Amino acid sequence: MIIVMQPDAGDSDIAAVEAKIRAHGLDVHVSRGTERTLIGAIGDERKLDPEMFDPMPGVERSLHILKPYKLVAREWHKASTIVDVRGARIGGSDVQIIAGPCSVETDSQMHAAAAGVATAGARLMRGGAFKPRTSPYAFQGKGVEGLAMLKNAAARYNLPIVTELMDVRMLDTFLEHDVDVIQIGTRNMQNFDLLKEVGKVNVPVILKRGMSATISEWLMAAEYIAAGGNHRIMLCERGIRTFETAYRNVLDVTAVAVLKKETHLPVIVDPSHAGGKAWMVPALSCAAIAAGADALLIEVHPCPTEAWCDADQALSIDEFGGLMQRLRALTQAMGRALSRPNTERHLETIA
Amino acid sequence: MIIVMQPDAGDSDIAAVEAKIRAHGLDVHVSRGTERTLIGAIGDERKLDPEMFDPMPGVERSLHILKPYKLVAREWHKASTIVDVRGARIGGSDVQIIAGPCSVETDSQMHAAAAGVATAGARLMRGGAFKPRTSPYAFQGKGVEGLAMLKNAAARYNLPIVTELMDVRMLDTFLEHDVDVIQIGTRNMQNFDLLKEVGKVNVPVILKRGMSATISEWLMAAEYIAAGGNHRIMLCERGIRTFETAYRNVLDVTAVAVLKKETHLPVIVDPSHAGGKAWMVPALSCAAIAAGADALLIEVHPCPTEAWCDADQALSIDEFGGLMQRLRALTQAMGRALSRPNTERHLETIA
Amino acid sequence: MIIVMQPDAGDSDIAAVEAKIRAHGLDVHVSRGTERTLIGAIGDERKLDPEMFDPMPGVERSLHILKPYKLVAREWHKASTIVDVRGARIGGSDVQIIAGPCSVETDSQMHAAAAGVATAGARLMRGGAFKPRTSPYAFQGKGVEGLAMLKNAAARYNLPIVTELMDVRMLDTFLEHDVDVIQIGTRNMQNFDLLKEVGKVNVPVILKRGMSATISEWLMAAEYIAAGGNHRIMLCERGIRTFETAYRNVLDVTAVAVLKKETHLPVIVDPSHAGGKAWMVPALSCAAIAAGADALLIEVHPCPTEAWCDADQALSIDEFGGLMQRLRALTQAMGRALSRPNTERHLETIA
Amino acid sequence: MIIVMQPDAGDSDIAAVEAKIRAHGLDVHVSRGTERTLIGAIGDERKLDPEMFDPMPGVERSLHILKPYKLVAREWHKASTIVDVRGARIGGSDVQIIAGPCSVETDSQMHAAAAGVATAGARLMRGGAFKPRTSPYAFQGKGVEGLAMLKNAAARYNLPIVTELMDVRMLDTFLEHDVDVIQIGTRNMQNFDLLKEVGKVNVPVILKRGMSATISEWLMAAEYIAAGGNHRIMLCERGIRTFETAYRNVLDVTAVAVLKKETHLPVIVDPSHAGGKAWMVPALSCAAIAAGADALLIEVHPCPTEAWCDADQALSIDEFGGLMQRLRALTQAMGRALSRPNTERHLETIA
Repeated sequence: MIIVMQPDAGDSDIAAVEAKIRAHGLDVHVSRGTERTLIGAIGDERKLDPEMFDPMPGVERSLHILKPYKLVAREWHKASTIVDVRGARIGGSDVQIIAGPCSVETDSQMHAAAAGVATAGARLMRGGAFKPRTSPYAFQGKGVEGLAMLKNAAARYNLPIVTELMDVRMLDTFLEHDVDVIQIGTRNMQNFDLLKEVGKVNVPVILKRGMSATISEWLMAAEYIAAGGNHRIMLCERGIRTFETAYRNVLDVTAVAVLKKETHLPVIVDPSHAGGKAWMVPALSCAAIAAGADALLIEVHPCPTEAWCDADQALSIDEFGGLMQRLRALTQAMGRALSRPNTERHLETIA
Repeated sequence: MIIVMQPDAGDSDIAAVEAKIRAHGLDVHVSRGTERTLIGAIGDERKLDPEMFDPMPGVERSLHILKPYKLVAREWHKASTIVDVRGARIGGSDVQIIAGPCSVETDSQMHAAAAGVATAGARLMRGGAFKPRTSPYAFQGKGVEGLAMLKNAAARYNLPIVTELMDVRMLDTFLEHDVDVIQIGTRNMQNFDLLKEVGKVNVPVILKRGMSATISEWLMAAEYIAAGGNHRIMLCERGIRTFETAYRNVLDVTAVAVLKKETHLPVIVDPSHAGGKAWMVPALSCAAIAAGADALLIEVHPCPTEAWCDADQALSIDEFGGLMQRLRALTQAMGRALSRPNTERHLETIA
Repeated sequence: MIIVMQPDAGDSDIAAVEAKIRAHGLDVHVSRGTERTLIGAIGDERKLDPEMFDPMPGVERSLHILKPYKLVAREWHKASTIVDVRGARIGGSDVQIIAGPCSVETDSQMHAAAAGVATAGARLMRGGAFKPRTSPYAFQGKGVEGLAMLKNAAARYNLPIVTELMDVRMLDTFLEHDVDVIQIGTRNMQNFDLLKEVGKVNVPVILKRGMSATISEWLMAAEYIAAGGNHRIMLCERGIRTFETAYRNVLDVTAVAVLKKETHLPVIVDPSHAGGKAWMVPALSCAAIAAGADALLIEVHPCPTEAWCDADQALSIDEFGGLMQRLRALTQAMGRALSRPNTERHLETIA
Repeated sequence: MIIVMQPDAGDSDIAAVEAKIRAHGLDVHVSRGTERTLIGAIGDERKLDPEMFDPMPGVERSLHILKPYKLVAREWHKASTIVDVRGARIGGSDVQIIAGPCSVETDSQMHAAAAGVATAGARLMRGGAFKPRTSPYAFQGKGVEGLAMLKNAAARYNLPIVTELMDVRMLDTFLEHDVDVIQIGTRNMQNFDLLKEVGKVNVPVILKRGMSATISEWLMAAEYIAAGGNHRIMLCERGIRTFETAYRNVLDVTAVAVLKKETHLPVIVDPSHAGGKAWMVPALSCAAIAAGADALLIEVHPCPTEAWCDADQALSIDEFGGLMQRLRALTQAMGRALSRPNTERHLETIA
């Protein structure tokens, strides 16, 4: 950490800052420039915080030199983490597609969805049983019953399931229902008690980016999970909030490139929530993979116009099939492969 | 709701939209213009959502005409709500000041803080026992012990307490400790399960604005609480996230004026988190009251440079006393009054 | 346009709105709903503006139904515009690469740059002679002399040139120097006098998006140029300003997809300014093409670390060559082609 | 400037950075920490830029310690600048009100406006003769004729005039018409050629903040003007662009407080453009003054509903009169005074 002193800071001001740094067990290095004196703290600066120094007399401002995250940082863990979800490997050379409806509605809807996405090549299935809705009067999800419906439909095609956990009190229920991947949604990215609890279980977690979360805040949220002992974390970019009103969110592909450099964790992109319209999904899916995403999370519904939520952003099964073909060509051009469905395995399961 | 059809939409497309509107129990009104046909839904459009119509063939887009909130809307409840917290009335002609440290640290810190803020004229005391911290390695609050310390210190001066609830599992503990006002923090503004639970209790709630929450989303979060039966809700503006990096947040005073028009609920401003620096607090406090805020939530610490968190934004007790004098003149000029401390009452309490 | 009346609007309020609409030559359609009366204006609503109605008694708000742009809208001009710059066609099935240094520095730098980018396959050359710099103390560009240096270097390889016009008084000089494509920079997107002037000349224009310009404002800026008679306009996305500080701008790939739907004009992406770091350029270039961009504008310098401006975002000629190979595979996978350099032609030129 | 080296940077990398710093005439100070080596540049770091070092081998990132502006910085010019516009002093203890219509329309409109604002206590008059409009089809202002109409109407009440300059070619015309204060609008804040030209004349300038300009960029734009020799600069906050759609802009009152600390230049607020609605103007005006603004720029029209532009944000003369009374009480409570109209003087003028 560097503490920048005001031009008129006196020796006693400098001494007080030095004493505070040493009190935290770090060493001090003072550099007197022509316009400012700088005080450097030598040692593990993660013990310090600018707010400790900024209110002290004579201090102009102070700044971290190191990134605040450690367990999730590539600097400290060079090799890319690959999260293996019952054989579907995310974060390696294969690109994985996770697909399914926004919300679990009925058994028949879920079976049609599972059949459709599995046939088109998705390796995991998504579906929401608990839905975070802006309005208290909107459909809030099928709840526990929905978890069973999702698990049941996905099992026929040997698809691991991904579903959102909103309430820390439901975690045990998620474990009982063998949820394969717990999704932490955008609105809960900094629900720290929830992060701490999923940090204690041995289930992969997809951590979505908050609507206006910086890369640093996002990685610190992941650090909460990692600090609890759960290192099977995947980050999911889903569009950020900006001034633009022509579309719901702005898909931040730069974040994909930056995350691949800053962290060893896999990076997923959700092109469906990013744009908010089904017709944008193909372009955003391609852009995400071209930017380096390890997996996509795509909303697919057997009958989009009848979907109970997010009807305008779900692809039909046919549209999804067409997109998968485009993605196959693209991943190949990028030197990666789109994971092929294990037809033999799920046929066996059905038989 | 208005559904705008594409220029080339056919009669069958229009008929399908009409049928869907009628299926939800609303009436239909078609208006054929020179460039577009518009379909109006007559009735309670809150049953409809753009996403129901946007994916239909021939639809260009659809838009709500009414605001989505109802219980919290001034349109449906003209009189301003006054929340009475053990005699301190928020939302009426008096302006109230809520003050205290960012986090509960020690008994002596809390007693000094309580004495200081009560003497200067604050009518309620704030203090965090559970702290939402960006880093898992930072001080997370004193927890339950902190609740008791806060209650104890505040009681000597007859100050009702305001403290943040982060985890739904702690609600009963808050009730047992007689928390007077439950604060829902910025990061939990859309933690819908938490909102539902505080909607069921009979304790006033301060709902802070999410970092990039629109007015509409914020009022819908309040609607969640109101829908549960708890109507003692206060909204707290605490700065929004923008592109500017010279200060932590941008205090949105326009929101104060807009909220006073849109909702009957009291509006509070937190000038401490907004700017993030103690020296900005006086200017932002004055601006907030001038814009029409009903109360302020100010961080005050007996020794700011030694505070365990947010040290750079807390006022000292002296600074707070000085600010109170400025605010007294200002509220008067605005035709309101700064609530005076009930010296008699708390002297009795002490005696 | 739809005018939404307040719940308590009287008949005379409605009559006044009707009269104002008719005074502008449009017809009126009134629809009385259960909670609001809506007044529709039938005819060319581009003559009306919400601000005409919003201050009238009884009006709640008014909203446009149609997009404000017309000449640049795909709705009125279905076929994609292809801008032909001396044989390099932008907006068709080929993807074009425009490359060169941020600023023109010396003859030898320009010749090395021209040779490098032409050999790697760029079909146009960029270079700034007039530089918009945040600081008045920074290098402001070589000026007119730079124009000649750019033209001269590019001519050896038969590369049309792209360069930024900042000052309307320099337009004639640009025409005298046979600038092939005039670039209007981010900071001048709404410099309306400049837009009007380039609207009168017969030279292709690249219009960069303002730092926080909406799609609608951007297209209206293009409409200014088109309204003057110059229809050879290309739009260039270069990253938008958001809350994120880990990178300079957020490349908005959603804008690419949306523009391809909303307008018939070609869409270019500048991956160099978007990220602000050379190492991000390959990922962002791939993402841009995958999202549907018609061309890329890439900073390339013979010796990036010695560049006089934007040194941290320029690719070396080797890096650029490597990127071109990746882009070739990618464009093919997307069903398009990366335009090949016309080796024969420029060899002739040299000979 | 501090250059942070990568953990694995070698001695030759460090030596290269040192050499580059020395080549620019600064001294070097190396500090080897436990995780990073830092290289400090001692001397006038304004000669250096992060982009010079960031692309060098072994460099992680580099950062400025000093602010980039100097002439406009309070650090180098402690006393507040007071801009005297024909006797109306802006930046001192008096608060000044500048009022008038958005655009100059007719002689009778201008005379009514001048009479109204002068009577209510405004000391300067605003009015736009050249209007920056989003649409090329909208009213673009009366042009030169409008300048004369504004000057003429204002002269009767001895009001200095404030009007916007958009096109550098019109500067001489502005000087011929004795424009008292040149306004540089939001969209031209970084029109550097325009800034350079107004830097050469001896006329006060109001520099509006760009829609998403940071404080630093804004002050650097002011530095452009000051560097040319014109030090009579006033900064005008007019709302920034954010994610919020319930109002046009977010008035940034924090900027007012920060500017008063960072610069010696007067700070003006435009509450009319900030909110975009007349009913918001009183609350925002009060908030601006409470935050410390030196002057307000308010839109007033003799008949707002008939205004040719921005009709929904102009106050009527009666509303303006009422607001002036509130502002008088408020400025007094803030320890300042609202400048009273010099009735004697303008009566003489009329006589």
